[in-house]
Amino acid sequence: MKKNGSLEALSEALRRLPGVGPKSAQRMAYHLLQHDRAAASELGHALLNAVDRIQHCASCNTFTETEICETCLDPSRDASQLCVVETPTDQMMIEQTLMYKGLYFVLMGRLSPLDGIGPKDIYFDKLMHRAANGLVQEVVLATNFTNEGEATAHYISETLKARGVKVSRLARGVPVGGELEYVDPGTIARAMLDRRTT
Amino acid sequence: MKKNGSLEALSEALRRLPGVGPKSAQRMAYHLLQHDRAAASELGHALLNAVDRIQHCASCNTFTETEICETCLDPSRDASQLCVVETPTDQMMIEQTLMYKGLYFVLMGRLSPLDGIGPKDIYFDKLMHRAANGLVQEVVLATNFTNEGEATAHYISETLKARGVKVSRLARGVPVGGELEYVDPGTIARAMLDRRTT
Ligand SMILES: [Zn+2]
Ligand SMILES: [Zn+2]
Repeated sequence: MKKNGSLEALSEALRRLPGVGPKSAQRMAYHLLQHDRAAASELGHALLNAVDRIQHCASCNTFTETEICETCLDPSRDASQLCVVETPTDQMMIEQTLMYKGLYFVLMGRLSPLDGIGPKDIYFDKLMHRAANGLVQEVVLATNFTNEGEATAHYISETLKARGVKVSRLARGVPVGGELEYVDPGTIARAMLDRRTT
Repeated sequence: MKKNGSLEALSEALRRLPGVGPKSAQRMAYHLLQHDRAAASELGHALLNAVDRIQHCASCNTFTETEICETCLDPSRDASQLCVVETPTDQMMIEQTLMYKGLYFVLMGRLSPLDGIGPKDIYFDKLMHRAANGLVQEVVLATNFTNEGEATAHYISETLKARGVKVSRLARGVPVGGELEYVDPGTIARAMLDRRTT
């Protein structure tokens, strides 16, 4: 097996995917090489392409291939409202409710001191800068209703209120302990309507 | 999201990995781009490298970067014995028992008519050719003791015996329904010693 450097390297690299252990990494490597070399090439190119092209939107912080993302450039959005979410998926969930026409800020995570995830890791300064652009009149906190999401919302809320910004939080239509990604759009829609000032 | 072609392409490509659904593909993509771009690049290069370099050993059919693999080139191996296994992992399991000093043939699968996997997919002709090289005196069938592995062993055994080749099968020390990959080396060692002519 010693001379198979590129096979071992592939298994090692697959192990760095979240949720993939040594056994499944090896199985993936064998499967790709034996049954789906086209998929292996496609994934290889897709990874290098994405790393090369995907950056953070200078305005909302989501993943984008352009300096400013499409949503932020959309003139029909209400620039007076800024909804703060943890992930691009959460943003998509809110978009699907059709109840919100403002703009977004994507934290790309949530505060989690135990995991060493602090304000810098959720782009806190960028958010503060964004919220202070003179147009934003309300920041809607739509972080998850988990302990970490609530703590993140609390932290952001306190800082923004100290700076005189109006802050609201999605109403508790979202089940306590729940993650937006797994909640039906109807519930999220109600929570958006019932959002309360914090 | 429309302009993020390379992000969508990455999610799509990750979905082609065995056992990865749309949700985990998206999570993997976000994780790599947000937290581990180095891993993404490494995996990208590893995939393209492996596709480019890994081929099948001309003799034993396992994955290798050279025309003939290291094991096949090892002059200390007993060329009169040929052990037939389903996968490179199974070969490795047998190597770990230190009970076998012959050569191997790796089928890269097993017969499975219901899945449309026939003799051609397990390199049957290549195996027949290999077994008829004039040096092989015994073929040891070490396919799994699952229904499909047994059927594969039976199919190979019948054809080889019709051609006058001595064929043996690992003894039933391996639990019925078991897969070599999950059996302890001691059991495999006993099964190797107790192998019987079929
Ligand atoms: Zn944006
Ligand atoms: Zn070989």
